[in-house]
Amino acid sequence: MEKKADIGLMGLAVMGQNLVLNMNDKGFTVAVFNRTVSKVDEFLADAAKGRPTILGARSIPEFVSLLERPRRIMLMVKAGSAVDEFIELLLPHLEPGDLIIDGGNSHFPDTIRRTKYLAEKGFLYVGTGVSGGEEGARTGPAMMPGGNPKAWPLVKKIFQAICAKTPEGEPCCDWIGEDGAGHYVKMVHNGIEYGDMQLICEAYDLMSRLLKMKAPAMHKVFAQWMKGDLNSYLIEITRDILAVKDEDKKPLVDKILDTAGQKGTGKWTVISSVDMGIPITLMGEAVYSRCLSALKEERVAASKVLKGVQPKKFTGETEKFIEDIRLALLASKIVSYAQGYMLMREAAKEYKWNLNYGGIALVWRGGCIIRSVFLGRIKDAFTKNKKLNNLLLDDYFCKVLKKCEPSWRRVVAAAVQNGIPMPAFSTALAFYDGYRSERLPANLLQAQRDYFGAHTYERVDKSRGKFFHTNWTGTGGNVSASTYTV
Amino acid sequence: MEKKADIGLMGLAVMGQNLVLNMNDKGFTVAVFNRTVSKVDEFLADAAKGRPTILGARSIPEFVSLLERPRRIMLMVKAGSAVDEFIELLLPHLEPGDLIIDGGNSHFPDTIRRTKYLAEKGFLYVGTGVSGGEEGARTGPAMMPGGNPKAWPLVKKIFQAICAKTPEGEPCCDWIGEDGAGHYVKMVHNGIEYGDMQLICEAYDLMSRLLKMKAPAMHKVFAQWMKGDLNSYLIEITRDILAVKDEDKKPLVDKILDTAGQKGTGKWTVISSVDMGIPITLMGEAVYSRCLSALKEERVAASKVLKGVQPKKFTGETEKFIEDIRLALLASKIVSYAQGYMLMREAAKEYKWNLNYGGIALVWRGGCIIRSVFLGRIKDAFTKNKKLNNLLLDDYFCKVLKKCEPSWRRVVAAAVQNGIPMPAFSTALAFYDGYRSERLPANLLQAQRDYFGAHTYERVDKSRGKFFHTNWTGTGGNVSASTYTV
Repeated sequence: MEKKADIGLMGLAVMGQNLVLNMNDKGFTVAVFNRTVSKVDEFLADAAKGRPTILGARSIPEFVSLLERPRRIMLMVKAGSAVDEFIELLLPHLEPGDLIIDGGNSHFPDTIRRTKYLAEKGFLYVGTGVSGGEEGARTGPAMMPGGNPKAWPLVKKIFQAICAKTPEGEPCCDWIGEDGAGHYVKMVHNGIEYGDMQLICEAYDLMSRLLKMKAPAMHKVFAQWMKGDLNSYLIEITRDILAVKDEDKKPLVDKILDTAGQKGTGKWTVISSVDMGIPITLMGEAVYSRCLSALKEERVAASKVLKGVQPKKFTGETEKFIEDIRLALLASKIVSYAQGYMLMREAAKEYKWNLNYGGIALVWRGGCIIRSVFLGRIKDAFTKNKKLNNLLLDDYFCKVLKKCEPSWRRVVAAAVQNGIPMPAFSTALAFYDGYRSERLPANLLQAQRDYFGAHTYERVDKSRGKFFHTNWTGTGGNVSASTYTV
Repeated sequence: MEKKADIGLMGLAVMGQNLVLNMNDKGFTVAVFNRTVSKVDEFLADAAKGRPTILGARSIPEFVSLLERPRRIMLMVKAGSAVDEFIELLLPHLEPGDLIIDGGNSHFPDTIRRTKYLAEKGFLYVGTGVSGGEEGARTGPAMMPGGNPKAWPLVKKIFQAICAKTPEGEPCCDWIGEDGAGHYVKMVHNGIEYGDMQLICEAYDLMSRLLKMKAPAMHKVFAQWMKGDLNSYLIEITRDILAVKDEDKKPLVDKILDTAGQKGTGKWTVISSVDMGIPITLMGEAVYSRCLSALKEERVAASKVLKGVQPKKFTGETEKFIEDIRLALLASKIVSYAQGYMLMREAAKEYKWNLNYGGIALVWRGGCIIRSVFLGRIKDAFTKNKKLNNLLLDDYFCKVLKKCEPSWRRVVAAAVQNGIPMPAFSTALAFYDGYRSERLPANLLQAQRDYFGAHTYERVDKSRGKFFHTNWTGTGGNVSASTYTV
């Protein structure tokens, strides 16, 4: 009898096809199936030609029969109801102990629900973030599997074979945690990606609007930045983009319309953060910045009415200011990642996940959009101190922030004085200053809430958990609540 | 036979009791019921003593039998499942055409659902925001009713009798719109309230940390501000709070712990905004600022590690800088309300509501927490131009923004240079600068998305709706995607 397949994959769109080829390259026998069966034949005749250990199935029973037990079945289908439909199609053909893996961009509450549902029926379930796009799927994606912990030994070998590797050769795939943890961490990855992209855009905007630099000059700046702490995939592609010319030999980037889309994981990240009360202000501004960019017609109309301040002629030293921008970007990026980690820490509490924070940095170190040298520093921080409460408090990042601070303030102040919007740089700095404020003005806010709604407050000179209420209009000499002109 | 009741109210907590007394004062006969029946007797024997036109009921059938037809029944119960439970308890006793009103802080999707559910059964439903707390309920709240439009004539007389009035004597209650519109607008009201409070706190923090002013001096500033454009309930109570002394004769506000709560409508507003893609950045920062304030222990620890810049000695003219702060607060407030109106406009599209924007400003003009002279200006803007697309484009606000702009930039720049967090002032300014930017750097962002995910982009020199994709690594001279050090 023929060797059975190590794993089966359903859903032969490009991502699915590339994962199959990747697995097969690594020596695994893979069974494939697609609801539109002709896709199976096309795949076998085309991309999978000459690969006898890729086995095509034309029906679900046939597909299931091709698999080694316990069966491992990976779904690469559209997130949402399609995942539930395929699960229901598969279930009658499976036996207890079999494993279903969802490799799509599912929303984590769905993965929590499905893990539980399948566990009750005796099956294993994994929801895994797969990052790196089509190319990553083919050559090595970052993978973030979560779900039923019993499933990890069944897929570890395959996943760690096909995933990206760090420069040190470590696999960019490790077990993230229980039920929805993998998809949650993938969601935070995407939120951080939003933030990184926004920061780069603001740096570019400042160089363009204040320093009047053109694309070729900025290309050189980003090429330079690739040599230092900012070395990352997104800086790399920005460098490349700025060098690309349109047919008329002018920079292509200048021809692109300035309206970005947002719907999806960035939004989910923000919703999760307000649900749990974690201030991921930079990702929030990044999401909102995309929203504002989309209001192109409104902005064009407003630009004709709201004249206000325009960038003044820059009189400083350009080289020095570019270095200021670089350091401001680095500091803002540290804040953004610290916020992302705050969010994951709270989610771990909320959903009872045992997250390995250093491991997550390692997983993101290669293969995915936010891969960078920087993530190695985060891994180091958690290696030094497994219980590190906040990235901002790590010695290394603390030192970098201190070094960046004067530049950061100069850059944000310059943007403010020149009418150039830098919402992400600004909010990062405000967060940094708020986070290191022993005392914030929320005491006044609590007084207001107690005044109009009797919400009570705690006191600095009494222990926590003791609540006080003041009859504000009844005490004090010159107090009155009657003079507001309604 | 006795006169039957004009309206019935279920739920005799303080808000409910006060609304009953308010209605009765205005000449309406009111039937009352409470699930814990003893509360009815207590109310009649105590607060409602000597009011023969407040009729107590000890059972739902009795309660319903006391009501004039079509029956009007107002629920003042906890938002959530309790509302559904009371609806189900009532339904068997009602007849087609009867009206149920939910006066609690319900989430608007619930109100949409309930309006539809009751309409299918032949009943009318209204969900109304009621703002102004316990005192407002007694003396005149702002009311934001939405739901089945056929219900409005049935309650208009009662609602407009009991509600707050503007200085010109207009009722602060008008029909908001279909199904969940009333509760939606109440939610936005609360989001704006979060923003207003945060702005006041940041102004206070800057006076305190940079100008080294103490509560009594700031009390005088807020008393002064009450005389101008900022005249509002929240400025008034801030003025009063700053004058209140603790038992030791020191300012009470200084004794209050700086940790604020957030859970509820502020959060809902942010979620709705990201769902619809509307950048309400100031409310977002206000919500996040409360979250950060709550991390008191972390901040105390961080303040010992992240030393960084501390406020320098202020060398300018104090009086002048206080006026800068006032104008910066006014400008930021304009942005916040403009964002709130952008959100309502999008919600009206999304949920097919006919919102009366000027009417909403009028409703908020009195009775509620955000009541202010400022809202009169907003009403005027929509009176002048019913189709006003954005408050920032109104002549009056445009002029005020122009006047405020230099102060606004000085204030934010000073905060940035002195290490004092002003997230709401900063994001308002960044939004203003972004909104009046004909071109934002999202062109680069679209290039990045097209580079790594083939998301395509539009072009400035082609018509909208035409999408282009570039093979970024295949064009241009010095382009390569291979040098990123993974």
